[in-house]
Amino acid sequence: MRATLMYGPGDVRVEDVPDSTIKRPTDELVRVTAACICGSDLHPYHSMNPADGPARMGHELIGVVEETGPEVITLKKGDLVVAPFAVSDNVCEFCRENLHTSCIHPEAGFWDGGVPDEGGQAEAIRVPLADGTLVKLPVAEDSELMPSLLTLADVFGTGYHAAKMGGVAPGSRVTVIGDGAVGLMAVLSAKRLGAEQIILMGRHADRTGLGREFGATDVVAERGEEGIAKVRDLTGGHGSHVVLEAVGQLPAYQQAYGVVRPGGVISRVGVPQYEQAPIGFGSLFRHNIRLAGGPAPVRAYIDELMPDILDGTIEPGRVFDTATDLDGVPAGYRDMDGRKSLKVLVRP
Amino acid sequence: MRATLMYGPGDVRVEDVPDSTIKRPTDELVRVTAACICGSDLHPYHSMNPADGPARMGHELIGVVEETGPEVITLKKGDLVVAPFAVSDNVCEFCRENLHTSCIHPEAGFWDGGVPDEGGQAEAIRVPLADGTLVKLPVAEDSELMPSLLTLADVFGTGYHAAKMGGVAPGSRVTVIGDGAVGLMAVLSAKRLGAEQIILMGRHADRTGLGREFGATDVVAERGEEGIAKVRDLTGGHGSHVVLEAVGQLPAYQQAYGVVRPGGVISRVGVPQYEQAPIGFGSLFRHNIRLAGGPAPVRAYIDELMPDILDGTIEPGRVFDTATDLDGVPAGYRDMDGRKSLKVLVRP
Repeated sequence: MRATLMYGPGDVRVEDVPDSTIKRPTDELVRVTAACICGSDLHPYHSMNPADGPARMGHELIGVVEETGPEVITLKKGDLVVAPFAVSDNVCEFCRENLHTSCIHPEAGFWDGGVPDEGGQAEAIRVPLADGTLVKLPVAEDSELMPSLLTLADVFGTGYHAAKMGGVAPGSRVTVIGDGAVGLMAVLSAKRLGAEQIILMGRHADRTGLGREFGATDVVAERGEEGIAKVRDLTGGHGSHVVLEAVGQLPAYQQAYGVVRPGGVISRVGVPQYEQAPIGFGSLFRHNIRLAGGPAPVRAYIDELMPDILDGTIEPGRVFDTATDLDGVPAGYRDMDGRKSLKVLVRP
Repeated sequence: MRATLMYGPGDVRVEDVPDSTIKRPTDELVRVTAACICGSDLHPYHSMNPADGPARMGHELIGVVEETGPEVITLKKGDLVVAPFAVSDNVCEFCRENLHTSCIHPEAGFWDGGVPDEGGQAEAIRVPLADGTLVKLPVAEDSELMPSLLTLADVFGTGYHAAKMGGVAPGSRVTVIGDGAVGLMAVLSAKRLGAEQIILMGRHADRTGLGREFGATDVVAERGEEGIAKVRDLTGGHGSHVVLEAVGQLPAYQQAYGVVRPGGVISRVGVPQYEQAPIGFGSLFRHNIRLAGGPAPVRAYIDELMPDILDGTIEPGRVFDTATDLDGVPAGYRDMDGRKSLKVLVRP
């Protein structure tokens, strides 16, 4: 079968690999019908150590069950399923608290690194803990809802997690930092949760335009001190109750504590590309700023978010502005890295 | 009148200073009947730049109103009042949200630095924004409840803030880091809010003994990796839902993210003596650890906490193990710094 491999910075290849097969009784083998390239895939695309490669890529996918291990009980051959970006058993104490990304099952973890011989940007994939990980989709493989349903695997759930951990509620004033797919999903999520003001900080007009359609009430293209001043102007001088940080770079975090209101919360879902950052008296402590967020337990949100997609209330799949087959995946990385594409849909 | 001045590290003196007087129509002049030395007073005692001094000291006090400015409406001469460690108008948008430490009135702020010519470790004090700042006490000046009521000025409200911002609720499993007065108040507060398990990390047996009486179910004297391992043992391996950090030094924060449970919260009330600290994937992000806390709006908690003191349900004043007059204040600093005293009550 064919699959995507990353060899080092800027070096993505689609190659023949051994066919994925069932290895454990709780596995399922899934033929991938739709996958995508994630903004977080660009982090190794920039900085991967070639000695750690080649690495199988892709952690967002929809597919058809081809074969089930003997202990799988909730899914059968032919089911169309969506796989979140983390494998989880859905029954441990953390999963029961809706924190599937901290599942304690020995096979649980992120696709990237955690399941080294598998990836979503491929023709097929072995899914561990299938009963816990996968969710059945009540549509056909050729449904036109596919792009929106695919966002349930990561970006929509991640944006929604940001908003939930930020405590967005009716009347909230929110600033979203980042106009990538997750930032736009954070806008859509804040809107869905009733935010009154949603300021989107981003400088790509096509993306912020979509952000406005998703619910952003204001757009601030400036960054740094200038951007902070603009947000403060838009919020009566004190900043936003809730800041959703969907970038992961240190300047985005610095921008976040620049625009957050005293007593407010910064909710991060952009994977931090830093470890040390300011949290002392001068940044968070003085005004009781809270910090929240982490890898989204998207499995926990699928049941809640899917109905709005199925009935057409929301259309998160609009973040996909490009589609390709597997051969086009290396170009897809290049285009996302070069901001020519917002998010690339892959149909293997 | 006589007042306490800090000239530099280890250099505290009690001297004659100009009498405090009313300067603005919203001021009150208060004769101090009880004050104290705070653990946070030890930070400048260690590291103050003599060029910034001499500085008036003391931000916790009870006293009798001697004179009221013409615009003060809620308090009158002869009232016994408690002054929180922050001046606030109690009516701005932040005070109405119970975040008095972020009051936006131009005269609002901390005693230390914010009201440079006044301090609680003195015979008298000018209190700005008296209607907003002060709370009347329904007891006589010689009440035996005085030590406990004095904790409402800072340490009890600060420990309670830690617990509230940590979301302590019935059934919570809590770790408190620090066996100083605030740490012990955090124990008492967690108990009051219904915590099921309260692990106190501290190595002074007399203090942790009092902590047990306040509600600690377990005491861990070890620090660092060894202490973290002990807490994990006591919590089924995963750590505590809530960690209350009442120290302010970086190792205490590192200990905090070592003992917090995935999805849990670290609530800081020890004034951070650092600005940069780990908050990336390896510390907070990976398991959705939240960070909360800041300077406690103790004004917001006085009405809630005072009844339990008045009816004897709780006795937070037990943290005072030493009492002195003004002359004994320099020795009080020395004894607190040397851990001979837990907390010093000053009767000017």
